Amino acid sequence: MTALETPAVVLLSGGMDSSVLLHHVAKTLGRRPVHAVSCDYGQRHARELECAAWQALAAGAGRHRVLDMSFLGDLVKSGTSLVRGGAEVPDLVRIAESDREQPPTYVPNRNMLLLAMAAAYAEAHGIADVYYGAQAQDEYGYWDCTAEFVERLNHVLALNRRTPVVVHAPFAAMRKAESLRLGLELGIDYAHTWSCYRGGGKACGTCPTCVERLNAFREAGVTDPLEYETTA
Amino acid sequence: MTALETPAVVLLSGGMDSSVLLHHVAKTLGRRPVHAVSCDYGQRHARELECAAWQALAAGAGRHRVLDMSFLGDLVKSGTSLVRGGAEVPDLVRIAESDREQPPTYVPNRNMLLLAMAAAYAEAHGIADVYYGAQAQDEYGYWDCTAEFVERLNHVLALNRRTPVVVHAPFAAMRKAESLRLGLELGIDYAHTWSCYRGGGKACGTCPTCVERLNAFREAGVTDPLEYETTA
Repeated sequence: MTALETPAVVLLSGGMDSSVLLHHVAKTLGRRPVHAVSCDYGQRHARELECAAWQALAAGAGRHRVLDMSFLGDLVKSGTSLVRGGAEVPDLVRIAESDREQPPTYVPNRNMLLLAMAAAYAEAHGIADVYYGAQAQDEYGYWDCTAEFVERLNHVLALNRRTPVVVHAPFAAMRKAESLRLGLELGIDYAHTWSCYRGGGKACGTCPTCVERLNAFREAGVTDPLEYETTA
Repeated sequence: MTALETPAVVLLSGGMDSSVLLHHVAKTLGRRPVHAVSCDYGQRHARELECAAWQALAAGAGRHRVLDMSFLGDLVKSGTSLVRGGAEVPDLVRIAESDREQPPTYVPNRNMLLLAMAAAYAEAHGIADVYYGAQAQDEYGYWDCTAEFVERLNHVLALNRRTPVVVHAPFAAMRKAESLRLGLELGIDYAHTWSCYRGGGKACGTCPTCVERLNAFREAGVTDPLEYETTA
């Protein structure tokens, strides 16, 4: 068994980036079996996790686990608009300049928690590699989506003498339009990825992540197959 | 408000070390209010969490939250004996030399997960300081109980531009008998701390953590008020 034939864990939200990453790991890197791990932390809607399940099947992932981390939503809802019971999701244009440091859609320390969980899963299954779809080029530069964040986290995990899990973030330095194009090459059906922070039947088209997604499709010169309330 | 008057978070298991830490932070350091945070991750018994609640009250903690992280127990039970449904808890004497690297009672990446949760709690509440009762001098040298582990984790958290939470582990370099003595000075009732890994009515006296606890009491020259099945 070569290194590339050993299983890998992919942290899968059901959004564009982690969905592309899942197919990328399974197809381009030839990493099979792939264990997709998702997390219910009290997101505003179930669409994202439904898309995660759809993509896990489409990518031929050997396993897909959805873990109940709803304690996180309870814990942080006063400080974020991304979970049920939290503050209202703002339109991109309405985000105050002072919030740009970390916008209202930032969830306190969520990504370290998700990666710690994925590393626990990997270690318990004797898997050394965890893939993480973070992009430092996100509109607001979340501190926990950068290559430096991943590097420092790996520095912690390297202390584990039994199973030193390594987190890989191959899209960290990419623009969203680039990973989108990679996904098109991999044949991904973007109708089954979900980005909108609001819980409506259609994507809203105005929340920060909808705007970011629509910009990426525009930059890539293709049409987003999702239906939107508005794409102004 | 000086730095020492700002709230602090204490990660509280209900064992000896984190109970001493809680009282130490509240009394010696004068850190009030203290928010104690505990976690149900599928431990073999409820005694530990009952003791956590008792100690939180005794230390005058302003809040005590017990978070449901039972997903962790499900995730790792094949690889640890510390959770319900996991492998049998071994006696200390029966632990194979090959297991000493990380013994059967080690839970994969649990401590990073707990600290990431505590940091999320702290950040969501605008608290900068998290206290962690780890001791590197634990019988087996868990990799995630060392000062170096905490230092590297803080290096990750320092990237957070909004609320850079800092984890403090003041007992990391102490022997267990030393923190035990500190607890005696603080007037802690050790009858309301729980260490045993097994789920019996009395502490077993033979599992690794019972042996470690009994050795610490012996070294400190005092009697453990807990009842044991055997103290041979």
